[in-house]
Amino acid sequence: MKGRYFKQQERQVLEDIIQHRRTELGKNFLNQEIPETVLNRLIGAALAAPSVGFSQPWEFVIIRDLSIREQIKDCFEVENEKAKKIFRTKPSYDQFKLEGITNTPVNLAIFYKPSSNPILGQTSMDKSGPYSVCLAVENLWLMARAENIGVCWVSILDEEQVKQILNAPVENELVAYLCLGYVKEFTDRPQLELANWERRKSQESLIYYDSYQGNSSQ
Amino acid sequence: MKGRYFKQQERQVLEDIIQHRRTELGKNFLNQEIPETVLNRLIGAALAAPSVGFSQPWEFVIIRDLSIREQIKDCFEVENEKAKKIFRTKPSYDQFKLEGITNTPVNLAIFYKPSSNPILGQTSMDKSGPYSVCLAVENLWLMARAENIGVCWVSILDEEQVKQILNAPVENELVAYLCLGYVKEFTDRPQLELANWERRKSQESLIYYDSYQGNSSQ
Repeated sequence: MKGRYFKQQERQVLEDIIQHRRTELGKNFLNQEIPETVLNRLIGAALAAPSVGFSQPWEFVIIRDLSIREQIKDCFEVENEKAKKIFRTKPSYDQFKLEGITNTPVNLAIFYKPSSNPILGQTSMDKSGPYSVCLAVENLWLMARAENIGVCWVSILDEEQVKQILNAPVENELVAYLCLGYVKEFTDRPQLELANWERRKSQESLIYYDSYQGNSSQ
Repeated sequence: MKGRYFKQQERQVLEDIIQHRRTELGKNFLNQEIPETVLNRLIGAALAAPSVGFSQPWEFVIIRDLSIREQIKDCFEVENEKAKKIFRTKPSYDQFKLEGITNTPVNLAIFYKPSSNPILGQTSMDKSGPYSVCLAVENLWLMARAENIGVCWVSILDEEQVKQILNAPVENELVAYLCLGYVKEFTDRPQLELANWERRKSQESLIYYDSYQGNSSQ
């Protein structure tokens, strides 16, 4: 085989990073700056993600300005009030912070930028454009974990309001809004699992062979 | 900090895997089986991905049956004829294989399974459901690279036809269709870059500070 050959020991490092990666819900962030060189390394990891047609359809807004983050937080509060009504039968919803917008040093808004020209590989499934941006998000997230930086994915936001606050071009789509910061702790298991909000699904229940017809996990 | 602490040497391994990961367009696959234990490790990596609300909204169909893969390939051929018309002014489109459906040992159809109950964090941005599945795809892709396995992402497909061939539940959404196999070569740069189909964008051109207003890369 031509190209870099990876060995078992290296696979084990990746496995460790993947298994120890966590979603930080927002409570565990420390008041500690992220050096610019580290942030650039995270973005560099994102930019090496696969993108259908090598379209690289991603744009990143690095937000440190507190007044802008306070506007985003206002947007979260409005949306979270709506969410509380949806979960009124599950009062434990209130225990979660679910954002780290102003108690992290850096927020990152990651957008999908559609192309005005046709893109190779995107002519039949146009969702593969924004999906490519998600792959970049995961690269960044894993590199953040390797840098011992926690990530909070804030999705309780009104996309149009966020675009307005950030003066985003009308055609751009917000894919992910992340809060990044060093943390007190990476928990052993996901915080929503520890809180008994959701259970981990078994691998067997999620795998089918050849088709959905018949049994899973033959 | 509580939890696993990662060191520079370990970050470097992740960086290497991320930077050496490639999209295999389909020509370089070898006729060599993927052991079941290795395939399980790839799926295990996918299952450790973040998902908004710890919803784990993913399902995997592992396809080895050749007759099913031939039906998928027929679907690709029809869609690719449409694509050729779209790219008729760029005849170099014809040089690319763009799929490895029947010349790999394993295909993997990865679906988003919507929940019938509200999901924490998905009440305002419902795309965060399928986006979570993409994060799982990238985990799997990186672990494949660490296993020295190539990945071809086939997106020139009609989603409804693929669902029909695989007897997928009507509510499921096809997020990614991957062909997996050992390869002759991992190229130094993306195959579409080497073929001068697309150029790599500069990091500076993709980053904005605080908002889109004003200059990028301050």
